[in-house]
Amino acid sequence: MDKIKYQETKEEILKQWIDEFGLHSYQYAIKIQKFPKGKRLFSSLCEGVICVLEGSLRALSVAESGKELTLFALGVGEVCVLSSACMIKGMDLDVSLEAVQTSDVAILPSKIAAQITDNTFHNQISLIINQRLMQVLKTLNQTAFVPLSERVREFLNLPQQEIRITHEEIANHFGSTREAISRILKEMEKNGEISLHRGKIIRHI
Amino acid sequence: MDKIKYQETKEEILKQWIDEFGLHSYQYAIKIQKFPKGKRLFSSLCEGVICVLEGSLRALSVAESGKELTLFALGVGEVCVLSSACMIKGMDLDVSLEAVQTSDVAILPSKIAAQITDNTFHNQISLIINQRLMQVLKTLNQTAFVPLSERVREFLNLPQQEIRITHEEIANHFGSTREAISRILKEMEKNGEISLHRGKIIRHI
Repeated sequence: MDKIKYQETKEEILKQWIDEFGLHSYQYAIKIQKFPKGKRLFSSLCEGVICVLEGSLRALSVAESGKELTLFALGVGEVCVLSSACMIKGMDLDVSLEAVQTSDVAILPSKIAAQITDNTFHNQISLIINQRLMQVLKTLNQTAFVPLSERVREFLNLPQQEIRITHEEIANHFGSTREAISRILKEMEKNGEISLHRGKIIRHI
Repeated sequence: MDKIKYQETKEEILKQWIDEFGLHSYQYAIKIQKFPKGKRLFSSLCEGVICVLEGSLRALSVAESGKELTLFALGVGEVCVLSSACMIKGMDLDVSLEAVQTSDVAILPSKIAAQITDNTFHNQISLIINQRLMQVLKTLNQTAFVPLSERVREFLNLPQQEIRITHEEIANHFGSTREAISRILKEMEKNGEISLHRGKIIRHI
């Protein structure tokens, strides 16, 4: 993708968000911020409603033990309201957002979002919360019912042959430990499915 | 509780629901149905918005393997919209409702609910979906981060000394197997925490 097309695309996504959520009168308040890979986006869940313009994020839950679990992923054009949970009635969460890749994010500050009375906006917010409930239910079903080894196998079932990821990162995706993941990966290597290298996994397709 | 008080209470709960959700013009359509213990409420998720008047329900997820997992519990006065998921935009779930005890449930049919344009109603529905998202996130965190033995121990930490429940029922609460639960309970019996009997568990407080 050349530079100009790349910029057009981000602007198009922003425009689409503004159209869909009826944000024309509030575009002055939308700020765009870049987050490097691995960065946690905000320290509180009061920042604002966000839309991913470039890159990808994950919503994650962190246990007291430090274990992490990916709740759902957010790709380009996806909107997340959890980062403005403070403005949502009945919402009191302990969820973080993290940049999976270097990402550009459009942010509509919670203070502004809270002033919007337009139905288009509120209907879209409701729609997104409904979708999140479904995604979290799906993750819960997977966590409860599907053995970890099977989930790891599915997770690694990607188009590319070489996957740059550490055992720790996979563990943090599933709320598991590095040890448990390493055991599963070694078993997969023994079966000839993959080979393990420092910081990367080669799939034998 | 004597019979008259009991009936007053159910009526009061119904009245409260009608007030809170602005259902005065739709009360003619609300039907009350009794479900015996263990009964699955509806075969589809299109029945209607429900309110528990007496007893208790659980929302559960069922895996292909037949394993079950309780998503959240619904006590007296609690409202559930998952049973009218078909009328909620973006909602496509695979969730069942089951009577934990013999329960009386007020049902506002989906067809009627879909006609309501009043904001009071829609705000309450949104509020409930937000709360469900939080509850499901909590269940997910527990499932991912808390060892099963610890979850079973907490589950049995009830006010009464004698708990009438089977190992199978505990397994169905946690999306686990009877064998895994029996192993944990036997360990707890060995530690002198409980003693196991047919269909019941005695806690040594």
